[in-house]
This record gives sequence, C-alpha cells and structure tokens, in this order.
Amino acid sequence: MSTDPNIRITEVALRDGLQGHASFIPTEQKLNLLKLLSKAGLNSIEATSFVSPKTIPQLADAEELIARSRELPDVRLSALAPNVRGVERAIASGVHEVAVVLAATDTMNRKNLGMSLDQAIAASEEVIARAASRKLSTRAYIAVAFECPFEGLVPSDVVVSLAARMLDAGATELVIADTIGAASPAQVQEVCRILTRSIPSDLIGLHLHDTRGMGVANAWAGISAGIRRFDASAGGLGGCPFAPGAAGNLATEDLVLMAESCGYPTGVDLPALYDAVAFASQITGRTLGGRSMSWAKARRTASVAESS
Amino acid sequence: MSTDPNIRITEVALRDGLQGHASFIPTEQKLNLLKLLSKAGLNSIEATSFVSPKTIPQLADAEELIARSRELPDVRLSALAPNVRGVERAIASGVHEVAVVLAATDTMNRKNLGMSLDQAIAASEEVIARAASRKLSTRAYIAVAFECPFEGLVPSDVVVSLAARMLDAGATELVIADTIGAASPAQVQEVCRILTRSIPSDLIGLHLHDTRGMGVANAWAGISAGIRRFDASAGGLGGCPFAPGAAGNLATEDLVLMAESCGYPTGVDLPALYDAVAFASQITGRTLGGRSMSWAKARRTASVAESS
Repeated sequence: MSTDPNIRITEVALRDGLQGHASFIPTEQKLNLLKLLSKAGLNSIEATSFVSPKTIPQLADAEELIARSRELPDVRLSALAPNVRGVERAIASGVHEVAVVLAATDTMNRKNLGMSLDQAIAASEEVIARAASRKLSTRAYIAVAFECPFEGLVPSDVVVSLAARMLDAGATELVIADTIGAASPAQVQEVCRILTRSIPSDLIGLHLHDTRGMGVANAWAGISAGIRRFDASAGGLGGCPFAPGAAGNLATEDLVLMAESCGYPTGVDLPALYDAVAFASQITGRTLGGRSMSWAKARRTASVAESS
Repeated sequence: MSTDPNIRITEVALRDGLQGHASFIPTEQKLNLLKLLSKAGLNSIEATSFVSPKTIPQLADAEELIARSRELPDVRLSALAPNVRGVERAIASGVHEVAVVLAATDTMNRKNLGMSLDQAIAASEEVIARAASRKLSTRAYIAVAFECPFEGLVPSDVVVSLAARMLDAGATELVIADTIGAASPAQVQEVCRILTRSIPSDLIGLHLHDTRGMGVANAWAGISAGIRRFDASAGGLGGCPFAPGAAGNLATEDLVLMAESCGYPTGVDLPALYDAVAFASQITGRTLGGRSMSWAKARRTASVAESS
C-alpha cells in the first residue's frame, strides 16, 4: 500500500464532462475553462478526445484546443485516442499524454466502439504502442470495470487480466472506471485490493461517477486501499453518453474536500476551483457543483450576513 | 468488530428533520409520514422531542403524535427528552424509548441547552436515570462529537469519556453525532476505532449529516470500523437549527442503497421509502431526496421510455 499521502487528480470535465453536452461550446470558452482549472492547481487535464467529429461533434476542435493550451505552464495535457487514426492525430497535436479506453465486457466494447473485446484489446495495444513509439505515456482506461449495463457485475479477475495486458502493452497508468456509477465502496475496496496484489498501486487510478451518491464513499474506499490517483470532473460535469443510466462524474471539489479533510493533500485550491465550476456552469447553462460547493456557498453567505 | 452484517437504522426525519421546519405540519400528516416510513421497514423511529413548545413550536404536538402512533405494529418509537420535565412528559406519553442529547463541548451545551458541559452531563444522567426507573431504554447522543462550530475539532478522548459516563448512567445506546456535517471519513474511522476499544460496537450508533457531501463516505467508514447502528433522515430532511452552517441529514435512502450494495442488509424497502420521501416533500413543500433517489427516478423514466 502506498505511504505517499499525495493525491494526484486528472481533471476530466473538458473531455468526459463536455462530450455529452449537446450544444457546441466554443473553443475559446473551453480554453478559458482549462486555464481556470489549471489556475486552481489541477495539473493533469484530460482535455479532449481524438474521436471522429461525426461521433462527438462537441470535440471536433480537438487539434485547436490542444494547440492553444499545450504551452500552458505546469499542465500535463492528455487526450483520448480511440484508435490508430485518433492516436496519430493526438501525436500530431502535441498532446503530452494519450488515453485509451477498453471496456471490460464484450457487449460494452461492441456498443461503444463497434468491436469485440478481443478486437478492442488489440486496438488498445496498438494505440499504446504508437504512443510509446513517440515517447508518449498512455493512461489505459478499463471502462465498466465494476458493473456493465449490459452484462452486469464484472468479475475482478477479468479486470486484473485486462489491466495486466494494458501494462504489458506499455500503458503507464491504469484507470479503473466505474463508468455507470454502479460500484459500491465494498466493491471498490475489494477490486483495488485484488489489483494491488499484482500491480503497484501508484500505477492504478480510479475514475468514479456519483450516479447513486456513492462517488465520494468510493473514493474513500480507494484511498483506504492505497490508491492515490483519481479522475474527477469539476462541478460533477458529465456522464457517459453511451451508457444508459450513467450521469454525474465524481465532482472534483467533493473529492478534494474529502481527501484534504482526511489528510491527503491534492494541491488544489478550492476557492479557485469553485470559480472554474461557476464558469463551467455559465458556458454549459447547467447547474453544477458538488455538495461541498453548496456548503461553501452557504458558508460564504452566512459569513457575509454575520459581518453585516 | 461486529461480525453481524445487519444495519439498524433509526429514522429521524420526524424529529431532526422537521424540528427546523418553519411552518407547522399538522399531526395527521406527521402520522401519515410515520406510517409510510414504518411501511418501508423502518422499525426504529425517533418521532418527536419533548422540548418546550415555545422553543420548537413544530413539535408542540409530541404527546398527541406518540399517543396516535404508539400502537403501530413493529415500530420502536423514541422521543427526545432534553431535561427532567421532558422525560416525564415522554414517559407519560407511552413512548418506547427516550433519547437525550449531550454536546461534547462546553460552548455548544451553553448555546443549545443554556447549560455548562458539567451541568449538561448531570442533566443527561438524570434523564437516563428517570427513563431507566420506568424500564425505558435511552439513546444518548454525543452531539458535535467530531467538530464543534464554536470550539473546533473535538479531541476523541473527550468523546470516549462522555460516552463512558452516559453508559455508566444507564444509557443503552450511544449516538455519536456529526451534528454539523464536518466529519471526514478518516476522522469517523479513527473515532470509531478508539471508541470500540473500550465500548462494544453494538452499543454505538452514528448520526451523520451530508452537509459537505461526505455523509455516505462517513457511513461507509463507520461500517468499516464495525459500526452497525445509524441514524438517517428520509429524503435528507433536516439539519440542526442551533448549529450555524449545518444542513442536510444523511438521507436514509442513500444509506440504505450504499449498505445493501455493500452486502449489509437494512430491512428497508427502497421503493416504499421513496414513497415516504415523496410524501415528506409534499407536506414540507421542499425538494427532498438523496442522490440515490434521483438515480432511481431517472432509471424509472428510462425504463418507461424504453418500454414505450
């Protein structure tokens, strides 16, 4: 188990958060959001996906966004690359890191990528190899790693085996994803314990959703099991457009408040993060913000009332 | 640590949930809510408080509510008794169990009860003794057991010492309360570990709030530390009217979904509980329902859409 208390967050609002948002957000606005997130101390940002613009028009500006943000100081920019075409575009864009998504079940890969599980494994291995050949590291997502909306509970040995294959292929980080927010803290703890028997905990990240109100509890279960890497989305923006019933990424502000309260530093400045969430809310027209933000707002209002 | 997986919930929406609600809810409606909660399988219900009607007019119908609900089958009714006058009223009402609240800090007792910590300890001991003399069991709350809005972090040895005094006085259950929702899962785990060194875990309950989005995570931390008794409030109704910044009890439905998902049975039927929450929402005019309920609603809508 990791003895390093520091939590490393990869902020995914711009990719996982925005990909399901219907109306196109201008690149300038995405860039402004990215800058605000970076200003809040989020130094690992998954900014976009090099998917076909026909599949996700929202992310059609992937090249431009990377080009305009890659020189920001202290930010490690990653982008999703679903296939070889995507990773070539990602490499050409100058992104710092690539991410690839492999679902843990055959049906989910077919629904999400139009490939069987075996085809998807091969495709992911190819993406990782191409990135590695250009000295780019790769975050390998294992999606629906806890429960699949089509196949139900995913056996943990399947996750361990897929994780090992991705590491063998050259992935530098695993992202074990509760894509539909169906995991329980007991399950997260169990899967993390099994994974860390054969894989160093500092190679493992958790990508959690708050669909059923267990996002923060699952993050705590992960921390308890020695995990220190987490994905999160400012304001809880997002969900998976291909997974029925999925909604609400784990809000970065909820993760940060919980982790810091428990003595695990994140390097994130909460008031600055709240500014980023407010901006995300403004550009998406959506009410955003985890529970911790409502609390912070209420407290600010109370202090103003007390001092007046 | 307890090896019994069964979680015992005391439902507090009628007392902790309603006490801060401004407009008076008719007794008939409270009774209907109580029946719906009981129908959902919640068999331990804190129904009211025998506090002065001037202090909390909402609970002025304590006698009538107990009289009209005490014969319901399979429900253990408890009521708060802040002092000797209150416990005499509670005993006369025919309630099955008494609850008494002692805050862990001097300032909170002065603000909440107008007594010093020592006076409050003595008052609690007297309430417990009176209840015991009538063969009534007593749940002894230790309020602001993690953090006090006036004195800050509460040392865990203070909590252990107050808990021991309440048990010595004859309390049959301790309720360690995060009155302002300021506890973190690490803190809950630590305090529970320290408490269970000297006190059997089946005498310890946790009363949690979701103010900062950590209610469910804190409940999981408690379960992990061997705690099996929890207070919760249907729909998350409530908060403490005397504690600045406190809002939102841990929602019973969020606790039930998490516990059951982790393999800890609660005996609560979620769809029936959602009906109770909908009714609570109707009579209070407030939007209620934990995150798990939004999820269940969305899923129901999705199933209807799919089947049509």
